[in-house]
Amino acid sequence: MKILALDTSSQAASCALLEDERPIGTFYIDAKLTHSQTILPMVESLLSASQRTLEEVDLLAVSNGPGSFTGLRIGTAAVKGIAHAMNKPCVGISTLEGLAYNLYGTKGIACAVMDARCNQVYTALFDLDDSMRRITEDQAIPLEELIDLLKKQQKEVILVGDGAVLCYNNIGEELRKKIRPAVPHQRLQNAYSVGLAAFLSHQDEAACARELVPAYLRLPQAQRELLKKQEK
Amino acid sequence: MKILALDTSSQAASCALLEDERPIGTFYIDAKLTHSQTILPMVESLLSASQRTLEEVDLLAVSNGPGSFTGLRIGTAAVKGIAHAMNKPCVGISTLEGLAYNLYGTKGIACAVMDARCNQVYTALFDLDDSMRRITEDQAIPLEELIDLLKKQQKEVILVGDGAVLCYNNIGEELRKKIRPAVPHQRLQNAYSVGLAAFLSHQDEAACARELVPAYLRLPQAQRELLKKQEK
Repeated sequence: MKILALDTSSQAASCALLEDERPIGTFYIDAKLTHSQTILPMVESLLSASQRTLEEVDLLAVSNGPGSFTGLRIGTAAVKGIAHAMNKPCVGISTLEGLAYNLYGTKGIACAVMDARCNQVYTALFDLDDSMRRITEDQAIPLEELIDLLKKQQKEVILVGDGAVLCYNNIGEELRKKIRPAVPHQRLQNAYSVGLAAFLSHQDEAACARELVPAYLRLPQAQRELLKKQEK
Repeated sequence: MKILALDTSSQAASCALLEDERPIGTFYIDAKLTHSQTILPMVESLLSASQRTLEEVDLLAVSNGPGSFTGLRIGTAAVKGIAHAMNKPCVGISTLEGLAYNLYGTKGIACAVMDARCNQVYTALFDLDDSMRRITEDQAIPLEELIDLLKKQQKEVILVGDGAVLCYNNIGEELRKKIRPAVPHQRLQNAYSVGLAAFLSHQDEAACARELVPAYLRLPQAQRELLKKQEK
């Protein structure tokens, strides 16, 4: 099965073409550019360099949140566009689950943690020893609440995501014996992990373009502020 | 410092642009195509997608062996060409050391092991806890000799390279308690690790294009057979 995966949930943009679990090609750019300009040319280069075509792709996957509001819209819009034009199934993958798949094959618990600003983190836990079983839903919670949750885990916990170091710096000496951040080049989101999650865990959720939407855990800041004003 | 790194030492081809340790961009293709056709267009796409130019690059790096004879020639020739044309310094990185850098940030000992056919492996050991200190030189040795070497190591050993599983399958139950293969997506050579090795350990060896050559650990099969005939 050939999967084309995209990730534009953070500052970096990436795309990957997989044959089942194996990467046929991956293309990753973190150059502070606008995803709307970079991602589709990157897909084109990826297909061209691997001498593959969109016709051959069986499934499209995209990280659909949490993450940068604009980034998520660009990624899902691009995948919706391709899926609609080519009449291909597509699936949205939680950005946190994609991050956890960076650790696929490792042991312990994966804690995906993204800095959500305003003293909050986006987070979810997965059991690496049990086929990436989801332990918690995607949540936006205060960092302290996540630390309480980590205290309760029996196994070694590996932190992934742009909040990994923030979290590690706040857990204290005692907890550091069983919690560690993933190594730098395994820490951030990338399209290969999104494709791997789609292949291994979400094939049965593949649907038509119309059903794919970004999954925001919080309202955008502008809307939060509007609601606050209206409450007053 | 900006580093452009290439790897064509195996079936896959990849290039990476680094700003010190950070990947600005990486492009990886494993589609059973000829490196001579793919690698330079890949470099072009990488620079174009990241809106960077060859002029900005401070150092060129390439895995220069061991590995596929033709692959190594293509990679070194490409880097020599760019270095010569642009008057940039370049450096050859041992493919085995590049592989070990896949594990940068991890603990224990990295054992890079590539299948060299004819019952031999290309191998080298590095101490991950001690700034990637090289423990053994790059060697072509029988697998049994490597296993004897691994028995003597006190720390946990992580196997990387296309010979990792071959080696793991032959070490027996007892040794498996302290030796494990790296997870699949960390196991094979890629240009980002080559660039990282160049930045962290080999900047002072950078030289002009003329001095860069492939480093073969054995003669090509045709030459080995010729020598054998001549001995008779």
